[in-house]
Amino acid sequence: MASHYGKRRAAALDDGGHDYLLRRRDIMQAAGRVFKGKGLAATNVTDIAHEAGIDRATLYYYFGSKEEIFEEVVGNAVEANTIRAEALRAGDDPVPEKIRQLIVELMESYAEHYPFLYVFIQENLAQLGKIRPDWAQEMRQLNRRYEEALVGILTAGIADGSLTTSGDPKILAYGLLGMLGWTNRWFNPAESAQTATEIGTTFADSFLTGLARSAAPTA
Amino acid sequence: MASHYGKRRAAALDDGGHDYLLRRRDIMQAAGRVFKGKGLAATNVTDIAHEAGIDRATLYYYFGSKEEIFEEVVGNAVEANTIRAEALRAGDDPVPEKIRQLIVELMESYAEHYPFLYVFIQENLAQLGKIRPDWAQEMRQLNRRYEEALVGILTAGIADGSLTTSGDPKILAYGLLGMLGWTNRWFNPAESAQTATEIGTTFADSFLTGLARSAAPTA
Repeated sequence: MASHYGKRRAAALDDGGHDYLLRRRDIMQAAGRVFKGKGLAATNVTDIAHEAGIDRATLYYYFGSKEEIFEEVVGNAVEANTIRAEALRAGDDPVPEKIRQLIVELMESYAEHYPFLYVFIQENLAQLGKIRPDWAQEMRQLNRRYEEALVGILTAGIADGSLTTSGDPKILAYGLLGMLGWTNRWFNPAESAQTATEIGTTFADSFLTGLARSAAPTA
Repeated sequence: MASHYGKRRAAALDDGGHDYLLRRRDIMQAAGRVFKGKGLAATNVTDIAHEAGIDRATLYYYFGSKEEIFEEVVGNAVEANTIRAEALRAGDDPVPEKIRQLIVELMESYAEHYPFLYVFIQENLAQLGKIRPDWAQEMRQLNRRYEEALVGILTAGIADGSLTTSGDPKILAYGLLGMLGWTNRWFNPAESAQTATEIGTTFADSFLTGLARSAAPTA
């Protein structure tokens, strides 16, 4: 599983040293704040430089464009989440435990990379594909692999009897990903009374064990 | 509970008669197809007239603007869903049954008004508010009332013991609304192998009874 994001990051690490990387991280965080406020399309490099407290020329020493910042952060995170989902699927844990980990870890990833993954969810991937077709294509493939890993976990759980549902695994997967992805509309880790881990645990409990005291559907 | 949408519709019904209303409905459906393809901002009245197979002047006999079409369909549907959620909350059914009905009926409403409620979800309400502040404000209040009704149902279920969860009712409500709202990304009633009712039932089962065979969380 080749990771060109990982390689690029590794090359920067070799080239730049500790201070270079710290400054780069500051710029990425500044960019995240601007993207969250204005959206990707309306943001320009000057906005990001201003937010980071540096000038435009200095920013170009660290990143070639606003797209490069966005793509590096989002690409790294989406790739890591996908590889993790595939590892969970391939692993030996009981299926309910795999689902619990996947839910909690995706919430934690949203918080860790806040607001980049949420901006990515809010953007139109078809629109992004017009500007950066290769990157958008790669993201589409990673999203598909993540979804397949989750559907695979659900299907295995139905087959081995650890999950009891007559629902379609794909519909259940979309429902779960909706519960998680929708957090882009209301969760801000810096302001939330509950941590990403706590919210993920609430979601995992409701999805795995249900809310109703009686196990039988009421209708 | 005053309904100016209902009143407007009633006035049109008085004025126009059966054929007028049928043509109006055709125009609303044509508008829905165009909104779904192009988004609200990029659509103009000529696009809608063309899709409906009429000329621009004729369209104005039925609707004053594209916003009027969008607002009428969305406003009616969101208001009806809110009133229904409040009636469920006030009613005597057991809480799990109320939740089941709310889930299934919201999915059915998405399908019945397809794609209007999904276009509404995809649009930025803050952006809509710049063009039509009164309408956006009304929608925001209806959304808030819907959410309060759902949180109220969940809170009552925790209090009367029919729901067993240590989760925050608001987080559970947002999770459920996310599961449902996210269907804007993948559900098209005309192409789906499963009906809105079936998808809603799958969601209700997973939310109420959970997927894991053992009732105890695994972690």
